[in-house]
Amino acid sequence: MKQIPYQKMAKFLTNRDENYSQWYNDLVIKADLAENSAVRGCMVIKPYGYAIWEKIQAELDRLFKATGHVNAYFPLLIPKSFFSKEAAHVKGFAKECAVVTHYRLKNDENGKGIIVDPTAKLEEELIIRPTSETIIWHSYKNWIHSYRDLPILINQWANVVRWEMRTRLFLRTTEFLWQEGHTAHATREEAEEETEKMINVYASFAENSMALPVIKGYKSENERFAGALDTFAIEALMQDGKALQAGTSHFLGQNFAKAFDVQFTDKTGKLDYVWATSWGVSTRLMGAIIMGHADNHGLVLPPKLAPIQVVIIPIYKNINQIGALSDAAIKIKAGLEALGITVKYDDRDNNKPGWKFADYELKGVPVRLAIGPRDIENSTIEVARRDNLTKETIPIDKVHEYIPKLLDDIQSNMYNKALNFRKENTFYVDNWSEFLKILDNQGGFIMAHWDGTAETEEKIKEETKATIRCIPFDSPEEPGKCIYSGKPSRRRVLFAISY
Amino acid sequence: MKQIPYQKMAKFLTNRDENYSQWYNDLVIKADLAENSAVRGCMVIKPYGYAIWEKIQAELDRLFKATGHVNAYFPLLIPKSFFSKEAAHVKGFAKECAVVTHYRLKNDENGKGIIVDPTAKLEEELIIRPTSETIIWHSYKNWIHSYRDLPILINQWANVVRWEMRTRLFLRTTEFLWQEGHTAHATREEAEEETEKMINVYASFAENSMALPVIKGYKSENERFAGALDTFAIEALMQDGKALQAGTSHFLGQNFAKAFDVQFTDKTGKLDYVWATSWGVSTRLMGAIIMGHADNHGLVLPPKLAPIQVVIIPIYKNINQIGALSDAAIKIKAGLEALGITVKYDDRDNNKPGWKFADYELKGVPVRLAIGPRDIENSTIEVARRDNLTKETIPIDKVHEYIPKLLDDIQSNMYNKALNFRKENTFYVDNWSEFLKILDNQGGFIMAHWDGTAETEEKIKEETKATIRCIPFDSPEEPGKCIYSGKPSRRRVLFAISY
Repeated sequence: MKQIPYQKMAKFLTNRDENYSQWYNDLVIKADLAENSAVRGCMVIKPYGYAIWEKIQAELDRLFKATGHVNAYFPLLIPKSFFSKEAAHVKGFAKECAVVTHYRLKNDENGKGIIVDPTAKLEEELIIRPTSETIIWHSYKNWIHSYRDLPILINQWANVVRWEMRTRLFLRTTEFLWQEGHTAHATREEAEEETEKMINVYASFAENSMALPVIKGYKSENERFAGALDTFAIEALMQDGKALQAGTSHFLGQNFAKAFDVQFTDKTGKLDYVWATSWGVSTRLMGAIIMGHADNHGLVLPPKLAPIQVVIIPIYKNINQIGALSDAAIKIKAGLEALGITVKYDDRDNNKPGWKFADYELKGVPVRLAIGPRDIENSTIEVARRDNLTKETIPIDKVHEYIPKLLDDIQSNMYNKALNFRKENTFYVDNWSEFLKILDNQGGFIMAHWDGTAETEEKIKEETKATIRCIPFDSPEEPGKCIYSGKPSRRRVLFAISY
Repeated sequence: MKQIPYQKMAKFLTNRDENYSQWYNDLVIKADLAENSAVRGCMVIKPYGYAIWEKIQAELDRLFKATGHVNAYFPLLIPKSFFSKEAAHVKGFAKECAVVTHYRLKNDENGKGIIVDPTAKLEEELIIRPTSETIIWHSYKNWIHSYRDLPILINQWANVVRWEMRTRLFLRTTEFLWQEGHTAHATREEAEEETEKMINVYASFAENSMALPVIKGYKSENERFAGALDTFAIEALMQDGKALQAGTSHFLGQNFAKAFDVQFTDKTGKLDYVWATSWGVSTRLMGAIIMGHADNHGLVLPPKLAPIQVVIIPIYKNINQIGALSDAAIKIKAGLEALGITVKYDDRDNNKPGWKFADYELKGVPVRLAIGPRDIENSTIEVARRDNLTKETIPIDKVHEYIPKLLDDIQSNMYNKALNFRKENTFYVDNWSEFLKILDNQGGFIMAHWDGTAETEEKIKEETKATIRCIPFDSPEEPGKCIYSGKPSRRRVLFAISY
């Protein structure tokens, strides 16, 4: 790590209110989460960023398994022809893809380094998976014969590639990491239940682990996954008033079963096509955590996903004082670790305490303990929380009782803060000029009536960049008039400008 | 799962002694570990196979972290020019690679489905990583400036692609899953220590978790990793007398630092190139577990890597009997799970017990408990172990005390069995005709003298297909004559025909 004088460190982060986009980028880089790579649009996820992703993975994997799913792995490469099989899917995914055309390199005979061997051309091009429905349903054809083979409840942790033109670290990258669930069912009802179950899993993960409230709802037809009959999404509000789609769950009907001819014999002996769902979240969630909570000092990590939950920093003027401080710190660390808390004791002597304070603030560590010679005298310790930047001094013998509660408190405080922010920035709007005004000013979630047509949706998008993020599950029936066309509407939908 | 009458099930596995290769393939398919996909050389890892891989990953990841490593993620795609930078590396890896040349598909104007858009050609082709030294050292250049930035101890879990001509499930596939460690150090000594530390981590994992004894040693120059100054390997003996290289750890010297210009300022202010290592194991380990232990009944899984450690099967003639059996089984399951043991209670009524017995044998589940009405009367339960196929009846109230010990016993028995097999099939050979005879008959490990030249090594390979698997670390100094050339030799090396 480069040593930056802590007084200057804040200057390395652009002020969030001045340039949100630059602040985000600075933060990702300075907090050592990720960086751009030599390959356009592909990122390197650095150890600290990856450690957060590992926490996300572990908890999601636990939730998937608790709901009966198992993991498997399907090939990275998909024959080009597979993308033509499902009519809607081809439009959505057979576009900006990485195409493998050759399988060998050789030395150039004219000494110009290595070149692609023109004789090693593939008969059929292979596409790096942008999503795996096609190759998975091609496999399922051989796995499914009878109702006894169903349901199949499979998840895959994988990398995917979509050739994005404009990329941003974590939010939109050419390659990203994700999980994709692909399930097969005997009945429509069961597949619909699965679709809903998984959007609920995502929502509870977002709220409980990421400390981010989300709105669950249906996507409009325009925004549906290519090949889905229905797409459910969770939408979170970021601090700049934009929406971030944090997860989707798709009811695919029998579309992929028909495209790949996957039929089964039901209990009565009748042949039918299999019902499907798919659902996924990606490293984009990292962007949601950052933009949902971080401030001008840096990241603010929810304790449940923080790779370091507590950092202990010794404060001393004289190196002779370190012995007693270390003894106390190591004892505290061991006690907290026994409670399942991740603790780092940072006794490096090449950085001043102030530098360390700023660095762990930048990294979003939820709790900082500082201990100095006077604390040893008084049997106290200083406790600082990252979420609200407050400090207090507590008796050292209370630390093991206090910290677990404090971490819970930080977790719920972060959630409540985000929820209040969303409440303050959710607007029920009934006229077009107000709609425009809100989008021009602070942004936010706008609940407004819509006439239900793709044309109106498209026009609103063209004029304002705002899209229908979802039709919230809990949006009550309420007759009204479309904000744009004035035509009748039965319920409000959620509009926002999105990432 | 397809229902196969259990009497017939054994017939589905080719006899191991008749056709080892077919037996292996049958087993991978029938035990639901993996299957071939629509893409030549790429496999689908099915849930049961993937569950074993997850166990392997979890334990290795724990060992890597316990030795100070952290995980990160680097791009899948590598610019072609990167492969030209390290002279030896280009020869080894810039050959059979998947090459991405285009980034868009489009609809054919003549209605022939989707085609590659010729206008979307990349300026520089991208290679799907066959290994990541180049892209990682390109990143390290920006991360490393001073000795304070060192060491970097990073591991990556990833998929890689090598365009193999002959593929076999798990053993050699075009795409495979692996981990690759890439470390950077300030001194030669530290990098050498790391190289050795990691081969020891692999060896202890193989022996403790996979129950497979391995020989640790140096690779001869011919067999070294492309770009390494030294390659250490662990070699395991399979039941057909062939060797399987189960893991490698490379001392890369300053080769990659020089190729990517990665220099650092040492404590004295002097600039020097950084020292490197890399090390990896892959889904090939699955092949080692299968071929190291399985028999004509199917897989034999070491308890530490078995996704299901204990299966409980109720035996009843009359459906009215199931209540009491289930009560007992559920109690046993809960008790074992509280001890950290993974238990499946299989009360499906659509399969006969005999079918289930054969199926869990095929799947290699270490312990099978069977409970019937007479057991309830007598307060007993039948315990069958997969490793030696023995059965015994024990008092039901001893089960929670007995099973943990039994699992340990199976684990060590499997290791000892494999060790004995290796002892019986390791030959100290001093003349060429005996060398040939052993290779023609049973195969095995051959410890023989070698004159140290690449020419002799090459000729032995041409004539016998045997290669030097490694120069064992513990092979004592012992003057002798080369088995092939008769020239002087200072120690024996390990020959075998390998996978």
